[in-house]
Amino acid sequence: MSSSEPPPAPSAGAAAAAEEVAADLSAATLSKKQQKKDARKAEKAEKAAQRQQQQQPAEADDPFASNYGDVPVEEIQSKTISGRSWTKIGDLDDSAAGRSVLIRGATQAIRPVSKKMAFVVLRQSMSTVQCVLVASADACVSTQMVRFATALSKESIVDVEGVVSLPKEPLKATTQQAGEKLVRVGQDTRLNYRAIDLRTPANQAIFRIQCQVENKFREFLLSKDFVGIHTPKLISGSSEGGAAVFKLLYNGQPACLAQSPQLYKQMAICGGYERVFEVGPVFRAENSNTHRHLCEFVGLDAEMEIKEHYFEVCDVIDGLFVSIFKHLTENCKKELETINRQYPFEPLKYLEKTLKLTYEEGIQMLKTYIDNLSNRQEAGTEIEPMGDLNTEAEKKLGRLVKEKYGTDFFILYRYPLAVRPFYTMPCYDNPAYTNSFDVFIRGEEIISGAQRIHTPELLTKRATECGIDVSTISAYIDSFSYGAPPHGGFGVGLERVVMLFCALNNIRKTSMFPRDPQRLVP
Amino acid sequence: MSSSEPPPAPSAGAAAAAEEVAADLSAATLSKKQQKKDARKAEKAEKAAQRQQQQQPAEADDPFASNYGDVPVEEIQSKTISGRSWTKIGDLDDSAAGRSVLIRGATQAIRPVSKKMAFVVLRQSMSTVQCVLVASADACVSTQMVRFATALSKESIVDVEGVVSLPKEPLKATTQQAGEKLVRVGQDTRLNYRAIDLRTPANQAIFRIQCQVENKFREFLLSKDFVGIHTPKLISGSSEGGAAVFKLLYNGQPACLAQSPQLYKQMAICGGYERVFEVGPVFRAENSNTHRHLCEFVGLDAEMEIKEHYFEVCDVIDGLFVSIFKHLTENCKKELETINRQYPFEPLKYLEKTLKLTYEEGIQMLKTYIDNLSNRQEAGTEIEPMGDLNTEAEKKLGRLVKEKYGTDFFILYRYPLAVRPFYTMPCYDNPAYTNSFDVFIRGEEIISGAQRIHTPELLTKRATECGIDVSTISAYIDSFSYGAPPHGGFGVGLERVVMLFCALNNIRKTSMFPRDPQRLVP
Repeated sequence: MSSSEPPPAPSAGAAAAAEEVAADLSAATLSKKQQKKDARKAEKAEKAAQRQQQQQPAEADDPFASNYGDVPVEEIQSKTISGRSWTKIGDLDDSAAGRSVLIRGATQAIRPVSKKMAFVVLRQSMSTVQCVLVASADACVSTQMVRFATALSKESIVDVEGVVSLPKEPLKATTQQAGEKLVRVGQDTRLNYRAIDLRTPANQAIFRIQCQVENKFREFLLSKDFVGIHTPKLISGSSEGGAAVFKLLYNGQPACLAQSPQLYKQMAICGGYERVFEVGPVFRAENSNTHRHLCEFVGLDAEMEIKEHYFEVCDVIDGLFVSIFKHLTENCKKELETINRQYPFEPLKYLEKTLKLTYEEGIQMLKTYIDNLSNRQEAGTEIEPMGDLNTEAEKKLGRLVKEKYGTDFFILYRYPLAVRPFYTMPCYDNPAYTNSFDVFIRGEEIISGAQRIHTPELLTKRATECGIDVSTISAYIDSFSYGAPPHGGFGVGLERVVMLFCALNNIRKTSMFPRDPQRLVP
Repeated sequence: MSSSEPPPAPSAGAAAAAEEVAADLSAATLSKKQQKKDARKAEKAEKAAQRQQQQQPAEADDPFASNYGDVPVEEIQSKTISGRSWTKIGDLDDSAAGRSVLIRGATQAIRPVSKKMAFVVLRQSMSTVQCVLVASADACVSTQMVRFATALSKESIVDVEGVVSLPKEPLKATTQQAGEKLVRVGQDTRLNYRAIDLRTPANQAIFRIQCQVENKFREFLLSKDFVGIHTPKLISGSSEGGAAVFKLLYNGQPACLAQSPQLYKQMAICGGYERVFEVGPVFRAENSNTHRHLCEFVGLDAEMEIKEHYFEVCDVIDGLFVSIFKHLTENCKKELETINRQYPFEPLKYLEKTLKLTYEEGIQMLKTYIDNLSNRQEAGTEIEPMGDLNTEAEKKLGRLVKEKYGTDFFILYRYPLAVRPFYTMPCYDNPAYTNSFDVFIRGEEIISGAQRIHTPELLTKRATECGIDVSTISAYIDSFSYGAPPHGGFGVGLERVVMLFCALNNIRKTSMFPRDPQRLVP
């Protein structure tokens, strides 16, 4: 967007100083093909040799030799506090024109034009700038300095001092997708080299969006008198029963990793904390190799006393997510545009007041749809009124709801008892249903929530009916024996919210270092 | 502080409705002595029987029977949305006088005065209110209703509708320490019954303070362009080497729990994220049975590019903690007073600009102190100039610094190489020292930080010198091979900050569900 020229006068310190680095971000480095790798290695070695060769004479007979070069080792060991001030590349705008600035960035592209001229594109986070070097005595730039710059490895960290000048036409090379055009890299390769992959503009944007979702989640709940808590991840029993639990030894004692903070956030409610939330890792040892499951993800959990009705929980979710969506749309335009350039998506449609449908209404919509198909085979899915919806049915329902109500975001409530955990409060008017709900974005579930049973008697009864050995959860049941208020809550997967808000096709794109059944590194 | 009277007129719903609960918060319930327990059980059973007996006739011949009673089961199953509004007990102040309010709370104390009169103290979070029941036809309160109230179990969850009246003199019974006076309960017993223990005013305050520390940590760093990230807790190698690591099997593969997000936050920096922070659990399988160690705690971690000097990191810590301390002092007065009532402490002394001392200066202060002692045995500690300070020496140094500089909070920097991890950047002028620091509150370490080595060559050299098998950390070292900026960071233990700010004597007081070598439940 802006371009900078070499400094008009020598300055304290190096005008263009580069630390030694050894690689670049191109397809070849990331590709698995050994042949390409070897070719590249040879090329690199040659370049390095060339650089060394070039530098030696440069230092000998270049009057401007002090304006460039490798940073001395002690300078990267906190030797100096110069008081110089660095400008962020992202802050270079029209108002910076004509000013001399000092910037630090990674060399994303290096383009020699002639012996006397070169372009170097520097990148810092989501922003890039083109630096123009022209050898001239007036500018105190030598041809040796141009040679030094063109011999830099890509992805070198470089300090540049220069005068900002605005280009007459926007520079295509410094729009953020520049790097993307060069490469097509598979997801596994990207994840294997995540420290490099994170430098792409889309990835710079995705995890900034993720941070904003979490911030807004906290900010909204804090404004509603929730207290942020932390509960243990090392626990003695499985938090929700079931087999999908990581087991380990804790000082010789069998232990496991919490599959959710369920019990603990309920204990905090029993402990007088009215409304609590937690942001923390959730561990699931499931062998689910899908686009939407992870073995470790970030759970956004909340639990609250309810005065009369679990719709009070739904109301919190309504206000919370509408405020998150608005915040992203209004305050993260640059990030969303950046993601859109690499992974185009339709903006999320949502209503000011979130739509709530009963599970029965949802089932009816799916049935009507199937009945109206000329060829019922097309439906491809069986709808069980008292069973759970499978992923495909959920997707279909999402499309039907969007057609009818114009929203990608809705709450489906009053699920059958049979498909919810034992601690879910049954409906007062029909014990085959529960005071529970799921919340969907673009036809995929992101939230599960419910009113919980808060009387030990009913909890014991329901656990027994579900075939759970009550003695294994006696501590959990006991915690409701000392006076427990009616309460409910919900859990959200942070990675899923970001994935579905941006309509990304894989949850591994929204986890910085994803863990799935196959992946434990890096 | 305020008291409320029974409703002047009948209202929709129950005026004083209690759910069945079965226990109380008194010493006897929490004590381990079986004898007391049994006595209590018998008393309870009797009370329950009495209650049942009382209620039957009440319903028969009481014209005001609809004004009280147990909540019907379906009402706690989300049957009704009445639109009634509940007032928080903490919001009852002078301006509420004369108003009719509906409140929900736990019965902290029940005091029968006569057949016609009783007091019930209700508690909600950190606040209590005294409810006065006087039987009178005008107030639609019967003697049966008074009997019902006095027969309630302590810690029952109760809805009360009444008119607020201000007492002429402050009521001692409704100050927050009321409950505390009754009980002296050992820490283990408290932790065993944490869901009840959390209801004490001090515990209500402690975890609200903890939440505020975290909020301010995030808020300050976000304002300085840090991005909040989440890194995996399930990892393939140990994050910092050493034996204190929890091991487990991950889909058949050996794995462990992260001892810190060190490697991952550095990878985020290498990934172009300039400044990052993380709040998340940290796992240490150490067999440390001290007042300041936990096997699982909440780590507040930050990592940032540095332009020239690691003091840039110290400056962030300075601004961050001074803003946290100020925020707590100015905005959490009620919480701090509440903690102070149970655990009296001196307010933390800190300077506007945080004091920085070199490790050598610290050693010198300790040596001078020891030399000046008439009896050197009193010193009780040997000072090794190039070794680490033990807990006792740190405490002493804290006292000396406070005497000389008037602060409980300071940074000690330039630690010897021998006592810091291999990835710590050595000093440019003396490789026996490092660009590292610890931060102390009241003579105890709460933060460790440093500039990190960001060149693969030096990292390999230092790892080898420290006897580490470089092949086991090749992925870590490799991540600096693709262009890495100079960077540094620090890690803080959230529980330690709260413990030391409030001068509490045990870290188990500031962990909601602490994990130590002996404790895995609840």
